[in-house]
Amino acid sequence: MSSVAIVGATGAVGREIMKILETRKFPLTNLKLLASRNSAGKEIRFKNQNVPVEEIGETSFKGVDIALFSASGDISKKYAPIAVSSGATVIDNSSAFRMNPDVPLVVPEINGEDIKFNNGIIANPNCSTIIMNLTIAPLYNKYGVERVVVSTYQAASGAGAAAMNELEQQCRDWCLGVPIIQEIFKRQYVWNLFSHNSPIDIDSGYNEEELKMVNETKKIFGDPDIGVAVTCIRVPVLRAHCESINVTLRQSYESIDEIRNLISDFPGLTVKDDREANEHPEPLMASGQDDCYVGRIRADVSQPEKGIEMFVAGDQIRKGAALNAVQIAELILVY
Amino acid sequence: MSSVAIVGATGAVGREIMKILETRKFPLTNLKLLASRNSAGKEIRFKNQNVPVEEIGETSFKGVDIALFSASGDISKKYAPIAVSSGATVIDNSSAFRMNPDVPLVVPEINGEDIKFNNGIIANPNCSTIIMNLTIAPLYNKYGVERVVVSTYQAASGAGAAAMNELEQQCRDWCLGVPIIQEIFKRQYVWNLFSHNSPIDIDSGYNEEELKMVNETKKIFGDPDIGVAVTCIRVPVLRAHCESINVTLRQSYESIDEIRNLISDFPGLTVKDDREANEHPEPLMASGQDDCYVGRIRADVSQPEKGIEMFVAGDQIRKGAALNAVQIAELILVY
Repeated sequence: MSSVAIVGATGAVGREIMKILETRKFPLTNLKLLASRNSAGKEIRFKNQNVPVEEIGETSFKGVDIALFSASGDISKKYAPIAVSSGATVIDNSSAFRMNPDVPLVVPEINGEDIKFNNGIIANPNCSTIIMNLTIAPLYNKYGVERVVVSTYQAASGAGAAAMNELEQQCRDWCLGVPIIQEIFKRQYVWNLFSHNSPIDIDSGYNEEELKMVNETKKIFGDPDIGVAVTCIRVPVLRAHCESINVTLRQSYESIDEIRNLISDFPGLTVKDDREANEHPEPLMASGQDDCYVGRIRADVSQPEKGIEMFVAGDQIRKGAALNAVQIAELILVY
Repeated sequence: MSSVAIVGATGAVGREIMKILETRKFPLTNLKLLASRNSAGKEIRFKNQNVPVEEIGETSFKGVDIALFSASGDISKKYAPIAVSSGATVIDNSSAFRMNPDVPLVVPEINGEDIKFNNGIIANPNCSTIIMNLTIAPLYNKYGVERVVVSTYQAASGAGAAAMNELEQQCRDWCLGVPIIQEIFKRQYVWNLFSHNSPIDIDSGYNEEELKMVNETKKIFGDPDIGVAVTCIRVPVLRAHCESINVTLRQSYESIDEIRNLISDFPGLTVKDDREANEHPEPLMASGQDDCYVGRIRADVSQPEKGIEMFVAGDQIRKGAALNAVQIAELILVY
């Protein structure tokens, strides 16, 4: 049993964490909701009770066992060390500590044991990284992965509730034939798609989202030799990310049926791969679901012995953020 | 000067062919518009005149020099041989003859000279193939291409006007909160994306669109050793396809600046690659344009010496179909 705090409780991920704590019957003694001054005073429903949102401060973490951070990187940098020195274990959803060598970066199905080496902070990986890593993990475990080439189809949800609202508003504006408001992404999003909005590293040409996928993957698998080539794209979808994944294994695999079974048997993955009916993963299928859906599983015709192609859909807010964080919290109770 | 017939004149591609013939000042002596009985009797505006649509028949091609087919594969199979025996050269937009060894498959910027070996029929490649092939051609010409891994972001336009209309209608229905009509793709398309609707080859797991890209690429470059791994996805965009392209060259390249210059100097391609402003190709940018837009040009971090990543947007109806067909017609006049 533990006392839990959620930092960023009023955000999309914070609210999803509360839902998941409730449905998974997480053994709570107390739940503390923290947010910025703007949100303080609100109440959020949890287990048939109204829980007040408190303004985060230096004394907020007294008596807290586990603090789930899902606010900005700046908030994490400022308050995570305070929470740790108050005795809490922090599970941080921001990118602030992910590449810190003292901080485990954990997808429970892949490297759950890494949480043992934490110094008070455990990082939750980037949402696209989690979905991709989970998909390749069963293949990695049996055959090793030499290289992954991945292209993402990312929903508005990854950019927060305001981005989702703007996309919906653009849809309504288009229907009405009035000018389309373009505040968040500075461009038309409905009927369009565009390279991910995170800043581009001028030297490499990769954007931050892509570099997260490259670097976090190596850390999660503890394998600096996994090559990751990635292009991140935002598509006009509200929730759930898709990824087209091409894997080069380190060894030849037995058969596609075996690969499909490896994926099907892996926790957190559901195979949706009906060639005859042409039914495969879609964002709407994955929205609100815990599992990531994997389909289009086939031998890569350009290198059939070691190449596998797949298409995955995963809920960015759930497994990509809130669920993974709660799973880490559950591991803390176990270890 | 030549007498031209358009088969499928009332379709999206047929109408675009007429626009392009007009703007490019194609030297016409006569324009004949052919379609099914349903469309016969309609009139379409061309150069300030109303041109009547005639029902296609066995005698339709008398006196026709060039017949541009953009109807179904069945119509091409039935009437292209009739047009040829009437003395016309057929440029066929369907997939009916593309892989026939006696039929050149032509992207003018890449293998325009191949039209010399025609026996009356010249095939226009698949739209996604054209856009991808044009993008890799400048790299192929200098360094050779060993393998391409490509994921597509395909618009509704590729499935015809009815698909575009259904997507727009779904958008309106969503705004109104009424049930969404799902006739063409049998699924919600607005706020969703899905594996390409062409049938899947049960043995390989590739769908027909993907197999076209694999096989047509080898034929266009005359190089059976180019490996192509491809995943085709439909996204809720009305017009213009995008593709995330990862290329493995056969030799090390000089620099990314040189690669960018090769692309920029190649006919039919425009570089849109602003790392600082994060401005890159988008479907709306390419819609209605002749050129394909190429951006996100960078060294593949997983194999920097021979790997290049790019993102391209091209108008599927224009360069992907109508423009390429008219360019082939122009070549016929030259050779």
